Amino acid sequence: MSAASPSRAPGHGPAALHGAYRAVREQTEALAEGLSAEDCLLQSMPDASPVKWHLAHTTWFFETFVLERAVPGYRSVDPAYRRLFNSYYVGVGERHPRPERGMLSRPTLDEVRAYRCLVDERMAGLLAQPDLPDDLAALVELGLHHEQQHQELVLTDLKHHFSRNPLAPAYRPRPPAVHAVHVAGERLTFLGGLVEIGHGGCGFSFDNERPRHRVWLEPYALAARPVTNAEYLAFIADGGYERPELWLSDGWDTRLREGWQAPLYWQRGPGPSWWHYTLHGLREVAPDEPVCHVSYYEADAYARWAGARLLTEAEWEHAAQSPPSLASLGTLLEDGVFHPRPAAAGSGLRQMFGDVWEWTCSAYLPYPGFRPAEGAVGEYNGKFMVNQMVLRGGSCATPASHLRASYRNFFPPQARWQFSGIRLAW
Amino acid sequence: MSAASPSRAPGHGPAALHGAYRAVREQTEALAEGLSAEDCLLQSMPDASPVKWHLAHTTWFFETFVLERAVPGYRSVDPAYRRLFNSYYVGVGERHPRPERGMLSRPTLDEVRAYRCLVDERMAGLLAQPDLPDDLAALVELGLHHEQQHQELVLTDLKHHFSRNPLAPAYRPRPPAVHAVHVAGERLTFLGGLVEIGHGGCGFSFDNERPRHRVWLEPYALAARPVTNAEYLAFIADGGYERPELWLSDGWDTRLREGWQAPLYWQRGPGPSWWHYTLHGLREVAPDEPVCHVSYYEADAYARWAGARLLTEAEWEHAAQSPPSLASLGTLLEDGVFHPRPAAAGSGLRQMFGDVWEWTCSAYLPYPGFRPAEGAVGEYNGKFMVNQMVLRGGSCATPASHLRASYRNFFPPQARWQFSGIRLAW
Amino acid sequence: MSAASPSRAPGHGPAALHGAYRAVREQTEALAEGLSAEDCLLQSMPDASPVKWHLAHTTWFFETFVLERAVPGYRSVDPAYRRLFNSYYVGVGERHPRPERGMLSRPTLDEVRAYRCLVDERMAGLLAQPDLPDDLAALVELGLHHEQQHQELVLTDLKHHFSRNPLAPAYRPRPPAVHAVHVAGERLTFLGGLVEIGHGGCGFSFDNERPRHRVWLEPYALAARPVTNAEYLAFIADGGYERPELWLSDGWDTRLREGWQAPLYWQRGPGPSWWHYTLHGLREVAPDEPVCHVSYYEADAYARWAGARLLTEAEWEHAAQSPPSLASLGTLLEDGVFHPRPAAAGSGLRQMFGDVWEWTCSAYLPYPGFRPAEGAVGEYNGKFMVNQMVLRGGSCATPASHLRASYRNFFPPQARWQFSGIRLAW
Amino acid sequence: MSAASPSRAPGHGPAALHGAYRAVREQTEALAEGLSAEDCLLQSMPDASPVKWHLAHTTWFFETFVLERAVPGYRSVDPAYRRLFNSYYVGVGERHPRPERGMLSRPTLDEVRAYRCLVDERMAGLLAQPDLPDDLAALVELGLHHEQQHQELVLTDLKHHFSRNPLAPAYRPRPPAVHAVHVAGERLTFLGGLVEIGHGGCGFSFDNERPRHRVWLEPYALAARPVTNAEYLAFIADGGYERPELWLSDGWDTRLREGWQAPLYWQRGPGPSWWHYTLHGLREVAPDEPVCHVSYYEADAYARWAGARLLTEAEWEHAAQSPPSLASLGTLLEDGVFHPRPAAAGSGLRQMFGDVWEWTCSAYLPYPGFRPAEGAVGEYNGKFMVNQMVLRGGSCATPASHLRASYRNFFPPQARWQFSGIRLAW
Repeated sequence: MSAASPSRAPGHGPAALHGAYRAVREQTEALAEGLSAEDCLLQSMPDASPVKWHLAHTTWFFETFVLERAVPGYRSVDPAYRRLFNSYYVGVGERHPRPERGMLSRPTLDEVRAYRCLVDERMAGLLAQPDLPDDLAALVELGLHHEQQHQELVLTDLKHHFSRNPLAPAYRPRPPAVHAVHVAGERLTFLGGLVEIGHGGCGFSFDNERPRHRVWLEPYALAARPVTNAEYLAFIADGGYERPELWLSDGWDTRLREGWQAPLYWQRGPGPSWWHYTLHGLREVAPDEPVCHVSYYEADAYARWAGARLLTEAEWEHAAQSPPSLASLGTLLEDGVFHPRPAAAGSGLRQMFGDVWEWTCSAYLPYPGFRPAEGAVGEYNGKFMVNQMVLRGGSCATPASHLRASYRNFFPPQARWQFSGIRLAW
Repeated sequence: MSAASPSRAPGHGPAALHGAYRAVREQTEALAEGLSAEDCLLQSMPDASPVKWHLAHTTWFFETFVLERAVPGYRSVDPAYRRLFNSYYVGVGERHPRPERGMLSRPTLDEVRAYRCLVDERMAGLLAQPDLPDDLAALVELGLHHEQQHQELVLTDLKHHFSRNPLAPAYRPRPPAVHAVHVAGERLTFLGGLVEIGHGGCGFSFDNERPRHRVWLEPYALAARPVTNAEYLAFIADGGYERPELWLSDGWDTRLREGWQAPLYWQRGPGPSWWHYTLHGLREVAPDEPVCHVSYYEADAYARWAGARLLTEAEWEHAAQSPPSLASLGTLLEDGVFHPRPAAAGSGLRQMFGDVWEWTCSAYLPYPGFRPAEGAVGEYNGKFMVNQMVLRGGSCATPASHLRASYRNFFPPQARWQFSGIRLAW
Repeated sequence: MSAASPSRAPGHGPAALHGAYRAVREQTEALAEGLSAEDCLLQSMPDASPVKWHLAHTTWFFETFVLERAVPGYRSVDPAYRRLFNSYYVGVGERHPRPERGMLSRPTLDEVRAYRCLVDERMAGLLAQPDLPDDLAALVELGLHHEQQHQELVLTDLKHHFSRNPLAPAYRPRPPAVHAVHVAGERLTFLGGLVEIGHGGCGFSFDNERPRHRVWLEPYALAARPVTNAEYLAFIADGGYERPELWLSDGWDTRLREGWQAPLYWQRGPGPSWWHYTLHGLREVAPDEPVCHVSYYEADAYARWAGARLLTEAEWEHAAQSPPSLASLGTLLEDGVFHPRPAAAGSGLRQMFGDVWEWTCSAYLPYPGFRPAEGAVGEYNGKFMVNQMVLRGGSCATPASHLRASYRNFFPPQARWQFSGIRLAW
Repeated sequence: MSAASPSRAPGHGPAALHGAYRAVREQTEALAEGLSAEDCLLQSMPDASPVKWHLAHTTWFFETFVLERAVPGYRSVDPAYRRLFNSYYVGVGERHPRPERGMLSRPTLDEVRAYRCLVDERMAGLLAQPDLPDDLAALVELGLHHEQQHQELVLTDLKHHFSRNPLAPAYRPRPPAVHAVHVAGERLTFLGGLVEIGHGGCGFSFDNERPRHRVWLEPYALAARPVTNAEYLAFIADGGYERPELWLSDGWDTRLREGWQAPLYWQRGPGPSWWHYTLHGLREVAPDEPVCHVSYYEADAYARWAGARLLTEAEWEHAAQSPPSLASLGTLLEDGVFHPRPAAAGSGLRQMFGDVWEWTCSAYLPYPGFRPAEGAVGEYNGKFMVNQMVLRGGSCATPASHLRASYRNFFPPQARWQFSGIRLAW
């Protein structure tokens, strides 16, 4: 599971690129290990794709955007895949409907694995060329970061699929329990002023992180760690789900329509306490773990109840730009835990990266001067810039090398199936 | 494929019953042969269940209604299956939601096959008893007829699942083409009068076929064979799908809402002609085959266009009660064709049994004096007696030993995924 | 309110026809008396039309089907009305969408009343002709019976509209209470045999009542009177709305989806008892009145709970063909009560006509040999012959001269806003 | 129509307040003049309320938030109104469901007018007090601005209601045509920097405009006037509604689902050109008028097609803070035109205020340090701060005294029934 460690992040020389390619591709396959062909076909909702589809789509990305462009007269592995595994790139042509991805028992899982192998071989040939043009190298790098995003989705989607099975299957065995230290949720203050956010360096970034630009921030304070289950249980016990005055109007309507009484995957019992479905199966809710699988609406209501507010993405990024201490790193994909863990003891900001994505109160909008990438890959980010809120910081399902302070994740305010949690601000 | 031939139909002695049990169970498994675990998990709509679920549910039926009752202190193979594989028997307790059957990657297909084996072994032990009580024998027989119904559903559901895959997978290879003789749709007349319908003999029947009772019939005529694709194409060409005056009001609303332009599975092209998805893959529509996959609404509109009407179930049954000639037998499951075939030459009623179910204009209602069976199996039929129309005669997916003149099938008027066709009456 | 008494039913000579015309038209207007223009615009659901629309549509019927045909070069009162007030006659052309009838603040109520006057004048001219052709006279008669149907709808639709207003407006003052005698629900038996039903005489009938034809009936028994509120309350108290085994499967799904706990318009309280909205405003449920505003699903579940069944339409008609005693007549529109009343003391079948429509367990289907009327009026009945159940006997909102033993009313099984009740059979 | 001119804007002394009260209330009634009771009952969609409801709700606001608080032992005009005319104030108690407002034929329009009179009398008594406490005066002022918002909604909602009538009723006669000068859409540049936006002065503002705060702006350019119909027609002609690459992903899905081909109220013909429904009836689309009734999605797609972008709310407000020239004022409610008019000749920013609301690319979010008002009126704005976009500048239906540079309007991105248009930025 250590294949794609941050120190082997996608780099710049051809050899480094090839190494990164192999590492990322292997990590994806490692995530699918132990899953049956049936498991990999599940699709529990339109938003959550089958694991097999992720395996194929990430491969399609390299075939469509890299090999087709790089290899004159390129012959695709299977012409039907162009449509079957296109996610949403209108510029590439027709797409198999998203809610129907679970209908693809053919090609089989074995055929999709063979597809991966074939494309990997062809990519290896390409990456062995000493003079890979910069634009192709950039597309390969984009494809790797794209695949890392899908690694997280493999886990969050699978969790959703499995949660619909009354047998509550465990994806991975539960790791040995660690003694959790209770960590208070103290406030850390920041001065703000005219700061800079966005990606400005030479490493990789998505187009939506650019350009780096100035933002004016008033002084603010952040909680040292995300809200815990114990704290969230107090919100529930105080009638948090019954008091419309705590909620945004759309949030309250959603809560009523969906019948929400607790975060996604939570259930009463067995016994008097709350349990939740995890990738280790059904477990009792642990008080010191960060609460997760809450929507923006719940995060916002919690913050209002707590006399606080959610942070803006600029506040988060400004705070996260200081050199990260060890403490600010939480659980990431490579830890192989696939579940958020309690904050570490110590001082300063903890779990800024990892464990749970933090809902910000910033709508997902273009930065001043934003320009989408050229061609069909320009559909990657820009066309989703409405009706979504930004999340920051990564989760226990995010690869370490995939994160950076300028990274912007985004989901609609009602989404709950990501490892999404809450950090308070004042 | 000959295991459950009509001559070995469910009988009465214990040995005969055990033989019938084995034959029916093996026939189910033969239908699933060649399908991957992924194929068997597909669920394309709430009405159509995964093949794996059919394999398990038919087994659940024997475990729940026979073994639990017959064996004191019976220990179920897996207590979770009681809920997972209950279809709609409220009397048995909770049910896994029907639209979520495709979410059950666990238990795996192999585990479900093992479940079948275990229950078969236990049933073998039970059926070996020399003094099996009559009520248990009757439940076993019910279970076998129940499983035969699911054999047909395995095929019709799988056809629907596969049809959603752009690759149009073939379930079975296409059989060699036979030279079709054109058979005219002549009218055969019947006198009617005070006739009897319903099941009255000593063989098996479902509760909804009983009691046998008197019905008054005016003289009527029936078409010698079902409507063919060629005839239906003339209806389409004459604007059949564009003329509301031909349709029932609900039918026209459905046609508009669903955008129907032709029977289910039909598509324009490749080329100028109509093709349709079959269990042999995509094929050009053959003119002399009976039209199928039409709804009641389409059948009714076609009949109106043709200056005829649909037959009533009493008319069908009265006509079918004469000793069946060879000609009146059409294609059945055992033929292994899984697609309706053209009518045979000759005279008299043809294809009364097999090829396509025939929509009658009779609503599915209780016969005078109807009494549902006792206990949870009483939910088998009676509670569906509203909003459905009766179909008669069986199809190319119906086991031969499953049919009889009194057999009543029923579906809502908008249903199209069964092998449902049209026989005209006057 | 006595204008259109049964003794002045639509007859045959021109003078009689003109008299009937005036009587029916005046009765419609009398029903709208006291309603404001706002009241007459209300549309609470797509199925229930505004009173103003009923006033206009019944007039449109005479203009479109009679005047346009009878008067060469006829100039319509307003060409736009042809579309605005067409209900569902595809043969007449486009229709204003049914759910949008409440959007027609223009033409105003005054303009619609003027429209009525103008058409009445023109009709008077036509009806004054000594030699009115038979086909025209028949269309006039059809239009009068059509208008009588809409008189009932004016009341049932208005009740639905008003029920959505928290002020619970009273349409008419409550009549003085009459002392109700408790009448037991005894069974009356009938021999059946080969009987005749359907309309065969020379008076008016709708096409769906024809032809008169033979039906075989086994012996049966009917309850002397409809089920009362007291009896229905016992069903509720016995968990009738909580026991799926009492319900048809579609009925139970509907009950869950709609949250039904009692008949339409019923509510708990004020106080511990049940109240219901009536056309006299909010009233406590009276035990001896017939229960009404139940769906077919509820009627069927009640009958199952009571160890009985619903009657068939042939049973009802056979029983109703005996010369009606005074007792068999219940409350009708002309009584001006607009609410069902308790059964009268005495013996024999009571309330066969009036008070509440009786759900039969017969699906609404064509009689053997049914032929719809020629032309667009052929859409009147035939195209609705699917997914509906037959009701018999009329209600407290049905004009007396509109009813006869062969009369078939029909509604979908979930419909509750008509004055629909239950008579048990065995 | 000049009653509530800007010079008589809600002020501070009791006499001024009383004057403003009378002016605003009279203006509301003037808007309803000429409408029938039926017109005032129409509700064409849940978002658009009946005019009668607006008349009552604005009165309810004064009764609930001012009189109940100011008058000890206050007896409401009708206790039922508290619930009937509550819009969304959970803190005030139950509300009549929004989609059911059109069901309230009672109270009648006359009764609602009487309600207005009674409350106006009581308010007059209150406002005549020499020592009206500041908090009450502030609530009165809030109520007046609230009522002005509803004046705009009276017009936009009525337009929607009337548009559903095939007769296309004219609300007001069409004013004489003015010769339009073609005005080019030149760019005006602004330097930006660390600017201030939000309300900071002593006049009235809503809580969502506060606090005034610093924002960093990069240099930007704005179009001198909104996009015209002629320009938008070029977008349509260039396939703007057929090219997904121009649209946000959610926007494209909405366009497909709703079948949008042009702005709301537009239709092809009569004749080859585009016509649209206006408050003067059906009119041909005039090329030099600002395009309106477009959603955010259409505004965004148009801007992308034009090689530009939408402006941010901070950019708009910064540009609008300069002392308004006469030219920057467009058509407002008091002009009595109720339809946007072509830009005036001249130079500088035109139509910054009036004619059409301008969609900004800013999500509607709280300003840094935002605090909602205390009590139930705190629900006025804050709870809607998600899933909406900000519009700026007012329209031809906005009262002049209601606007200011800091004013924030907001609607979901799919909303089209406001007078919403497009100003480009670069």
